[in-house]
Amino acid sequence: MRRCDELGAISDQSGRLTRAFHSPAMQRANQLVGSWMRAAGLKVREDAAFNLLGIWPSARRNAKTLLLGSHLDTVPDAGKYDGPLGVLTAIAAVEHLRATGATLPFNLEVVGFSDEEGVRYQTAYLGSGAFTGTLRKIDLTRIEEKGIMRARRSKKEFLGFCEVHIEQGPVLEQANRPLGVVSGIAGQSRLHVEFHGRAGHAGTVPMDLRRDALAGAAELILAVERCGVQATVGQIYAAPGASNVIPGYVTLSIDVRDMEDGRRISAIKTLRQKAKQIATRRGLRLIWKMVQETSAVWCDKEMTEVLESCVRRNGIDCASLPSGAGHDAAVLAKICPVAMLFVRCKDGISHHPAESVKPSDVADAIGVLANFVETLGARHA
Amino acid sequence: MRRCDELGAISDQSGRLTRAFHSPAMQRANQLVGSWMRAAGLKVREDAAFNLLGIWPSARRNAKTLLLGSHLDTVPDAGKYDGPLGVLTAIAAVEHLRATGATLPFNLEVVGFSDEEGVRYQTAYLGSGAFTGTLRKIDLTRIEEKGIMRARRSKKEFLGFCEVHIEQGPVLEQANRPLGVVSGIAGQSRLHVEFHGRAGHAGTVPMDLRRDALAGAAELILAVERCGVQATVGQIYAAPGASNVIPGYVTLSIDVRDMEDGRRISAIKTLRQKAKQIATRRGLRLIWKMVQETSAVWCDKEMTEVLESCVRRNGIDCASLPSGAGHDAAVLAKICPVAMLFVRCKDGISHHPAESVKPSDVADAIGVLANFVETLGARHA
Repeated sequence: MRRCDELGAISDQSGRLTRAFHSPAMQRANQLVGSWMRAAGLKVREDAAFNLLGIWPSARRNAKTLLLGSHLDTVPDAGKYDGPLGVLTAIAAVEHLRATGATLPFNLEVVGFSDEEGVRYQTAYLGSGAFTGTLRKIDLTRIEEKGIMRARRSKKEFLGFCEVHIEQGPVLEQANRPLGVVSGIAGQSRLHVEFHGRAGHAGTVPMDLRRDALAGAAELILAVERCGVQATVGQIYAAPGASNVIPGYVTLSIDVRDMEDGRRISAIKTLRQKAKQIATRRGLRLIWKMVQETSAVWCDKEMTEVLESCVRRNGIDCASLPSGAGHDAAVLAKICPVAMLFVRCKDGISHHPAESVKPSDVADAIGVLANFVETLGARHA
Repeated sequence: MRRCDELGAISDQSGRLTRAFHSPAMQRANQLVGSWMRAAGLKVREDAAFNLLGIWPSARRNAKTLLLGSHLDTVPDAGKYDGPLGVLTAIAAVEHLRATGATLPFNLEVVGFSDEEGVRYQTAYLGSGAFTGTLRKIDLTRIEEKGIMRARRSKKEFLGFCEVHIEQGPVLEQANRPLGVVSGIAGQSRLHVEFHGRAGHAGTVPMDLRRDALAGAAELILAVERCGVQATVGQIYAAPGASNVIPGYVTLSIDVRDMEDGRRISAIKTLRQKAKQIATRRGLRLIWKMVQETSAVWCDKEMTEVLESCVRRNGIDCASLPSGAGHDAAVLAKICPVAMLFVRCKDGISHHPAESVKPSDVADAIGVLANFVETLGARHA
């Protein structure tokens, strides 16, 4: 917790916590976290994508590597735990294992990824994307640091990846559980929708002669809310935007997430149908664009079962929940099995200075993670 | 029509038509329109509120005054007819009456009011407000031209006021009528509404734990549309306004108009009840503020009947309709009987350069207005 505070003071902006990819604050953060890694007995290096790595090599020849960690960058005006908690709990778990004199049949690597939030280039997962060799060409065209592709690691190296992260939602708090094991990371679609109607004087155009784009949008917003999957209208803009003028044009965003890709796609199809009906009935023109689409990623069944057994062994009722937010683990899943452990957070608040976790929950997470490494170690012994 | 074009070229902004109260363009407009008044045989003066007056005095002693006209200021990026049409048709009617050698048992005054749109000080009706002595003290505190109150005229002077104006709506066009006689000017309420909920991550806050301010606003928007009177949500703003964040705060405007004040007030009461229910059900905090409220104004029964008879005498099926927009006539109604004649406009468009009227409709309006003056003259002979 003290390390979270100390790291939370390293920022690119005074008065608020912001650390962007390859910024001066990120360099200082890597130095500080690197010093803690060294103190835990890890060999420290920074890869070509500015990911910080702390290595505990196994005595066994040709051993595979178990990767633990999360990211060290933040959103603007961030909280202290989203990202760093996963790196610092991994270091603490290593310290615990070292203190008990553990030896491992695999290499253990703690990673602090250099970019998950995508604040610098509006391209998220630069760190884990370079690490797994899954960055798209279009992402590379946007960034100055062309050398980051050299950070690519081989699929064959890894036994798996386990990430600890704050939940960023209210589910564990509501269920009164300190920890939760993540079943997978939801697929996501982001849509851009426009309704084009006809602006007109609020006083002179009778109700039955209107083509009110905002009234149409209101119907769609309620349909989104009732579409049966996790769906959100976060942005809306109505023009011309005067109190005495009927809106002739509205644009809105729709965010749809689900662990079942088929269910997500079918919900979007139903919403599009609904939007078409609204447009036809109201004499509006509809524009419907898919802006972004990612498939759901399931955590590895076997690793997740091990993680669940470790949670129970620590005396905690094990909650299982999907992650609606994206995580480095979803990128790592492209090259190796992944598991994720969520830590309860206060009021579900994240991406905000009020982000908060309980020290006792964090202690539980460290215990579970150390136990997880030991259990895997015993299996591979 | 040519005069509308010529006057439409006089603007405070190059490339678009904007004439604000007491601006250089308004001074040039008064000079130009004044020259047309003089050519029609009127005695021209500008009053202390910069209203342009063209006077045809009666030979009869102690005669009352019939006032014709509208306003000469415009909204920003205006059309050429909203306002000027009422002044120029009045001058044309005078020319017609003069040409036929008419004498009148009352004084006739053509007025071009200096401010109806309120662009300069966000205070509408400065011209007719000063003229009628009905400006509020708060309006005076906002303006530099403190002397305009000296433009006040006496109630006893006036026989009545008749205003020709473009409809600014689609009703006459839809009904296939060139002209319409206005029954009255609707009362109006303008409301400011806020819903305060809780922002949250679109991916991590389950649907049943949300307090989504925008979904609540969407319900209210549909209730406004179905509230049974002329009602509009023209402005909406949702914060924080990111596609992946549940809106925690929404503000919106509601504009409600009706010819029956009781019906308008009762509709607002029902909407407020509905908004409270929405807020309670969704765990939102509601803020509900009345920003502006004006009562409905009925046109004078007798003058309106005369105007209707003149429309019919010109071979036109007489349409009767309320005005949802405010007009100088509503202010003049505080000191004398008023009547209003609407001229059909294209596609209901107004407050826009595309504002358009048919020359033949305007010719009809001039004929009806001249006939109206003659008919009143005969009645008062």
